[in-house]
Amino acid sequence: MPDTPNEAGASRLVYVLNGPNLNLLGKRQPHIYGHETLADVERDCRGLADELGLSLRFHQSNREYEIIDWIHEARETAAAIVINPAAFTHTSVAILDALNAFDGLIFEVHISNVHRREAFRHHSYVSGVAAGVIAGFGTLGYQLALRRVAQLLEG
Amino acid sequence: MPDTPNEAGASRLVYVLNGPNLNLLGKRQPHIYGHETLADVERDCRGLADELGLSLRFHQSNREYEIIDWIHEARETAAAIVINPAAFTHTSVAILDALNAFDGLIFEVHISNVHRREAFRHHSYVSGVAAGVIAGFGTLGYQLALRRVAQLLEG
Amino acid sequence: MPDTPNEAGASRLVYVLNGPNLNLLGKRQPHIYGHETLADVERDCRGLADELGLSLRFHQSNREYEIIDWIHEARETAAAIVINPAAFTHTSVAILDALNAFDGLIFEVHISNVHRREAFRHHSYVSGVAAGVIAGFGTLGYQLALRRVAQLLEG
Amino acid sequence: MPDTPNEAGASRLVYVLNGPNLNLLGKRQPHIYGHETLADVERDCRGLADELGLSLRFHQSNREYEIIDWIHEARETAAAIVINPAAFTHTSVAILDALNAFDGLIFEVHISNVHRREAFRHHSYVSGVAAGVIAGFGTLGYQLALRRVAQLLEG
Amino acid sequence: MPDTPNEAGASRLVYVLNGPNLNLLGKRQPHIYGHETLADVERDCRGLADELGLSLRFHQSNREYEIIDWIHEARETAAAIVINPAAFTHTSVAILDALNAFDGLIFEVHISNVHRREAFRHHSYVSGVAAGVIAGFGTLGYQLALRRVAQLLEG
Amino acid sequence: MPDTPNEAGASRLVYVLNGPNLNLLGKRQPHIYGHETLADVERDCRGLADELGLSLRFHQSNREYEIIDWIHEARETAAAIVINPAAFTHTSVAILDALNAFDGLIFEVHISNVHRREAFRHHSYVSGVAAGVIAGFGTLGYQLALRRVAQLLEG
Amino acid sequence: MPDTPNEAGASRLVYVLNGPNLNLLGKRQPHIYGHETLADVERDCRGLADELGLSLRFHQSNREYEIIDWIHEARETAAAIVINPAAFTHTSVAILDALNAFDGLIFEVHISNVHRREAFRHHSYVSGVAAGVIAGFGTLGYQLALRRVAQLLEG
Amino acid sequence: MPDTPNEAGASRLVYVLNGPNLNLLGKRQPHIYGHETLADVERDCRGLADELGLSLRFHQSNREYEIIDWIHEARETAAAIVINPAAFTHTSVAILDALNAFDGLIFEVHISNVHRREAFRHHSYVSGVAAGVIAGFGTLGYQLALRRVAQLLEG
Amino acid sequence: MPDTPNEAGASRLVYVLNGPNLNLLGKRQPHIYGHETLADVERDCRGLADELGLSLRFHQSNREYEIIDWIHEARETAAAIVINPAAFTHTSVAILDALNAFDGLIFEVHISNVHRREAFRHHSYVSGVAAGVIAGFGTLGYQLALRRVAQLLEG
Amino acid sequence: MPDTPNEAGASRLVYVLNGPNLNLLGKRQPHIYGHETLADVERDCRGLADELGLSLRFHQSNREYEIIDWIHEARETAAAIVINPAAFTHTSVAILDALNAFDGLIFEVHISNVHRREAFRHHSYVSGVAAGVIAGFGTLGYQLALRRVAQLLEG
Amino acid sequence: MPDTPNEAGASRLVYVLNGPNLNLLGKRQPHIYGHETLADVERDCRGLADELGLSLRFHQSNREYEIIDWIHEARETAAAIVINPAAFTHTSVAILDALNAFDGLIFEVHISNVHRREAFRHHSYVSGVAAGVIAGFGTLGYQLALRRVAQLLEG
Amino acid sequence: MPDTPNEAGASRLVYVLNGPNLNLLGKRQPHIYGHETLADVERDCRGLADELGLSLRFHQSNREYEIIDWIHEARETAAAIVINPAAFTHTSVAILDALNAFDGLIFEVHISNVHRREAFRHHSYVSGVAAGVIAGFGTLGYQLALRRVAQLLEG
Repeated sequence: MPDTPNEAGASRLVYVLNGPNLNLLGKRQPHIYGHETLADVERDCRGLADELGLSLRFHQSNREYEIIDWIHEARETAAAIVINPAAFTHTSVAILDALNAFDGLIFEVHISNVHRREAFRHHSYVSGVAAGVIAGFGTLGYQLALRRVAQLLEG
Repeated sequence: MPDTPNEAGASRLVYVLNGPNLNLLGKRQPHIYGHETLADVERDCRGLADELGLSLRFHQSNREYEIIDWIHEARETAAAIVINPAAFTHTSVAILDALNAFDGLIFEVHISNVHRREAFRHHSYVSGVAAGVIAGFGTLGYQLALRRVAQLLEG
Repeated sequence: MPDTPNEAGASRLVYVLNGPNLNLLGKRQPHIYGHETLADVERDCRGLADELGLSLRFHQSNREYEIIDWIHEARETAAAIVINPAAFTHTSVAILDALNAFDGLIFEVHISNVHRREAFRHHSYVSGVAAGVIAGFGTLGYQLALRRVAQLLEG
Repeated sequence: MPDTPNEAGASRLVYVLNGPNLNLLGKRQPHIYGHETLADVERDCRGLADELGLSLRFHQSNREYEIIDWIHEARETAAAIVINPAAFTHTSVAILDALNAFDGLIFEVHISNVHRREAFRHHSYVSGVAAGVIAGFGTLGYQLALRRVAQLLEG
Repeated sequence: MPDTPNEAGASRLVYVLNGPNLNLLGKRQPHIYGHETLADVERDCRGLADELGLSLRFHQSNREYEIIDWIHEARETAAAIVINPAAFTHTSVAILDALNAFDGLIFEVHISNVHRREAFRHHSYVSGVAAGVIAGFGTLGYQLALRRVAQLLEG
Repeated sequence: MPDTPNEAGASRLVYVLNGPNLNLLGKRQPHIYGHETLADVERDCRGLADELGLSLRFHQSNREYEIIDWIHEARETAAAIVINPAAFTHTSVAILDALNAFDGLIFEVHISNVHRREAFRHHSYVSGVAAGVIAGFGTLGYQLALRRVAQLLEG
Repeated sequence: MPDTPNEAGASRLVYVLNGPNLNLLGKRQPHIYGHETLADVERDCRGLADELGLSLRFHQSNREYEIIDWIHEARETAAAIVINPAAFTHTSVAILDALNAFDGLIFEVHISNVHRREAFRHHSYVSGVAAGVIAGFGTLGYQLALRRVAQLLEG
Repeated sequence: MPDTPNEAGASRLVYVLNGPNLNLLGKRQPHIYGHETLADVERDCRGLADELGLSLRFHQSNREYEIIDWIHEARETAAAIVINPAAFTHTSVAILDALNAFDGLIFEVHISNVHRREAFRHHSYVSGVAAGVIAGFGTLGYQLALRRVAQLLEG
Repeated sequence: MPDTPNEAGASRLVYVLNGPNLNLLGKRQPHIYGHETLADVERDCRGLADELGLSLRFHQSNREYEIIDWIHEARETAAAIVINPAAFTHTSVAILDALNAFDGLIFEVHISNVHRREAFRHHSYVSGVAAGVIAGFGTLGYQLALRRVAQLLEG
Repeated sequence: MPDTPNEAGASRLVYVLNGPNLNLLGKRQPHIYGHETLADVERDCRGLADELGLSLRFHQSNREYEIIDWIHEARETAAAIVINPAAFTHTSVAILDALNAFDGLIFEVHISNVHRREAFRHHSYVSGVAAGVIAGFGTLGYQLALRRVAQLLEG
Repeated sequence: MPDTPNEAGASRLVYVLNGPNLNLLGKRQPHIYGHETLADVERDCRGLADELGLSLRFHQSNREYEIIDWIHEARETAAAIVINPAAFTHTSVAILDALNAFDGLIFEVHISNVHRREAFRHHSYVSGVAAGVIAGFGTLGYQLALRRVAQLLEG
Repeated sequence: MPDTPNEAGASRLVYVLNGPNLNLLGKRQPHIYGHETLADVERDCRGLADELGLSLRFHQSNREYEIIDWIHEARETAAAIVINPAAFTHTSVAILDALNAFDGLIFEVHISNVHRREAFRHHSYVSGVAAGVIAGFGTLGYQLALRRVAQLLEG
């Protein structure tokens, strides 16, 4: 498991967390979400992470509690969380509270530009605790968030 | 003037437009906007643009009409606009209408995470016509937008 | 497993999905929900489905993710989803997003007339993607939805 | 006049009332309302009513007061009202008040799914006094409402 | 026709107008509206009018246009209108506009206290042009309005 | 003190309570409130009360607590309260709570038609507990309320 | 009846429809509506129509259903509807639905500038289906709408 | 310069002012704004003005202050302003204040029917001070406004 | 006067303040407020205070200014205020401002669960400055607040 | 398992349920939540329960469905539920519906004073079905709720 | 008593009225209200009044009715009222009504800039009847208001 | 140029900035703004500044960017800005952002009492960063602001 944090590496560990329905990425509504699958996204992120000297934990779940549990887990070991909360963006105070208990960097990623969709997608519980938000950059958004994490970890 | 578009180059010209008060960047409220000046941003963007094979027009103005005029100018020649409308984000329908008349790519950049600031900064007229929005990535946001432009121009 | 879709039958498979607390049907608040249990509903639906030449998958869960997973599963095999999202009607964007990824028919059923109850029960995330909505017809609503599915599948 | 209520039959008389513009059914906006005419609907309803042992009065009017008068008339003789108030759904307190004075069963039918149309069509004055509401089931909605009436009259 | 205005009497003619469903008065919802019929109300009003030296036109209609036509008629001959617009109170701008064209006294009467009922009954288009409003005094409200008219006509 | 309730008379005692600034009645803004003083109102009310066989307690105060205390006092002895809460209409939950503890009849009187004045005067805390409300009948409103009390006490 | 549509003329027939209280035009509130009567307006419209080669049906009604019926009638024969819905502008979804079923040109006319009057007059159900809206041009607005119809029919 | 006001002519001078992005007229979004350029509009307006005996000043600017300055200038010399404020319609209190200081006639023109576009385009600061508003008549709207000006100047 | 603060005791003095209508406690609306009187509450509080080593000032008033004055008085001598502001909860900024000037502990008590009552009772000006809020625990709420005060004073 | 309900004890069994992120209690944001862990809370509650003669089931979960399942379980055996729904307070209609099906006592506990935090924390779905609510009493709140339960069970 | 109005002096008498909690001025929240006491303010005002030839009545009360009574008193004798209504600014319609009955000059003073504090402090009932408002000028605001009064009394 | 800041004087330099349409002061709407011109205001301010030992830069512009540029300029040299933003008060986030970058004193002046005018004039973007706000004191407001600046610079 190459991304297990050790004493030295812990400070460069990043959790990349994906919310509900993202397991369908590349399979549903390609006019909105494109043709890349989540496995493609993970592969690209891991490639860039290697380049940037970051280690990754990359997860997806349709279960709110798993996302909460991963955030709790990250509290012990990780320097940053890059999260695409998908539908939970707009409804989950529980994920917000979990993130509130995390001291590291938080970046919020949306594949589509949520501001061009239904009004209820314009509000995010997560944005208020994130350092930054990126939307509408397609799956590239994940990589750009990792670049920002790397830049800030240099300090 | 290396960024003058010619027949071949026109399709890789990007306008980077900056709204009011950004001439003070690096000089005011560094806890919000950081210590880099707009000249630093321009220099970094030009460096990356060279690397990505893009040419740039980089402008700042406190005058709404100049920004409108630059967008009109971009209609003829440019492939993309990267815009940090600053305060005009929240108030200018005129800039929105100018962008509506532009057929190329539009990306919206905010240095700070506007979602953590006053409620009136949570609404953007520009987001509805932008392909993507990035906020809270500091001045790196400009470069990430350029990377996305380059990726999309490859197609 | 009589309702497994086969080549021919796949196009006549219907998922009937029930949200949280419906396992208590017939046991709680009979002045609102009546005396029939969910097992009674399933039995009546199966009877009618036989008559209409439909096959059924009938599920209930208090777990949002199970409902999402069933909708994902239905994408592969089912012609229609009849869903009583119960409390998730009003709160789950994640179920909405899962339904958005389903190309078949969607019908929304509520046993009670939600429009006569608290104001927060008047809004449904699901109605915007459903072909039709039925509320206040008691447990008969499920059967009426099946009838409409059968009619449209002829169509 | 086979639907005249007599002592015995009165308790099985149902008024089916249709609001403004439904005289155009099948002639306007078929992508929303389909190709069946109101005469088709009446014929199908009468067929089913016979089967269910119900007698019908079937009316349409563009005049709010006629609908009110029919509801007043129904007070004396009918067991149920099935009403598609069309545009009056959203604007007529007078019809609501007339229905408030009716002691029998009330079902509200909409041919299209009003929840997918303009926001002002999401509110119904009638839903608050109806036993049940059905929308988006096409003209079949009338028949399903009659089935529910028959079921409750057994009940 | 004892209430025909003549030269002298015209200035003491009062129209008492009643909106939709008031023909059911005393027959429906007696816990809200009491047991008196509209004929009782008319009789009591005529009795008091005689005593006060007023002549009356007393009408009821479920038809908005008849109420408008009576108001137009009143413009020529009447000193005052006492109106219980019933459901039209909350929805009819057309009646408001007709009243706007009437130069005499206008009093608005509601039998029940509309402020204790549904929120949509708390707004009245008529109140803004009425000299006075009385609600919740039962059918006595009509007589009290007539007393006020008489007092002001002395005035 | 002719209005002291005794065993027999207690059930015909009415408190007439007046809120702040009504001590100026007849002295300020006569285009809104007319020329009668509160002493005139009291005199007319007493005259009518005699006629109707009611006894009165008639009070005015600019002090919210005095009005509360009088309502508490009325709990022991009075059959009805006629109240013109003036400015407290729109702001005093404390008076509402005091009235909630009173079991007799409550009528609310406003001299001017509050519905034609500023929007904040359109909401009354008192209307929700009053049997009836009268506004815009000038000082006659008090007498009309007394007439209604008398009618109901016959009841 | 010179305006009966025939094969050739049908395409140049225009319905000019006027809503409630416009029969009083020139008689009420001249500071808002001016001194011309509706007969004057009709005469001027007919004069201009002759000049423009249009034929007219010119109607007024206080009855919502008559306006609906005329719109239905226009579906068969007319090229355009010019409508001043008066009070129905703000309240009638039924007229909106009738207009939705009309395939020709629709223009909305208001004699006064409704934007300078009460807030409830700022919203129009009709504007959303009209090609154009004119307000505050007095009775000239009708003629200007006819000019636009003629221009578009040239096309 | 034929439109210079002189003693006699001043009272027939009209300013026609156009807001931001209208310099692109005929070049952008022709499905909304048509194919005519602003030069075409000016030419047609000048033709009609000659016919009506009006003189014109015709301007366009993307600069709010220029529009303000022209309105100030018009205060001295012009009888009327016909203004298409474009995007400034919805955002400029400064233009409203300038118009408030102008004593002549004001007409507001929109080429498209703004009521069919985004909600923020439904509110106009200018409508509250305009004599009339015309929207959705294409570029003909300008000429119709000039006709109304001419009519009123006779008046 | 056993509760006079002295040097040592001052830090254990608690004001228990009660707002309007609480003098009726146990006498009005027992289904909401129970059967205990305020004297019972005081007795129980004094008993518990003795046990906890606290001294008490226990007051009730229907007068907002008395409550303000007691809070000012408490500034000099008391460690905590336990306040049931009753109706003033929802309306008194003046009490809020007085509490803002108090440096000790503040606890807010409501006998009934205000969240189950009218919407206007859901907002409290006091909650924003209180350390804690307790509602719906009946008169026991006072004692529980005293227990919390005692716990915190141990510290 | 001392808290198993038996015939006699069932009526004294209390479920204490804790929502998401409370497993971190004492570990995160101590300025809001203090230093006690949830194990400390459980230990203190068990101590007090013994004293009060109550038996306890004490649970925490980040999973909404587990909380629902526990509430369903409590329906069979428990006299009361003391619940700190944490983030679910503000978002879970499903928990509300489960509580609606529980006939015993319900008390809602929040460790911090939610009324001093973000606006979205001011609304609770649970408060409307709770007998009482306590917020800002720290972890003592649980014990105070148990005291109230014991008091009411005496009853 | 040097400020007793006489025939000549009455027209230069100014009431300076201070609302609740201002008796604590200089003693509470000095970061908001500064260190001056109300006695200091009175002394400075009297000094300036002498200089300006004004006489003063200077009062403070926590009692709304006293402020009302002073305003009533001022009606007889004073040329102006300078009022700092403190918390009553936001809640007292009764003070607004009293001021409505005063014909002289009214100026509203707030020591702190209320626009930088809680949202409920941004609305003032008094501002709508005041000639001017001053906020955030510290205690100097009183003197500036007196200067304006003096200037206007010169005329 | 007597107001050029030097080493010593810089700290006593005040910018007095005036927004759009104030060049018309004394020429338009004298019932709102009075008869003094802006030149009068400047002259009076300079007179008082001399007296108070302040130096002034006094500007007016209809151009938002000029006001922004002056604020930027003031950052280098001035101790205070007194600004009457006129229409920009309600619309310019850009001016707010410029003021946010200024460290000195800011006072906001309005000649008229904006709280008595249209609702959109009740909100000011500037008030949130101003030390104080003065409205309705006529042109004297400028001088009073200068007095406050002088007082604080002593401070």
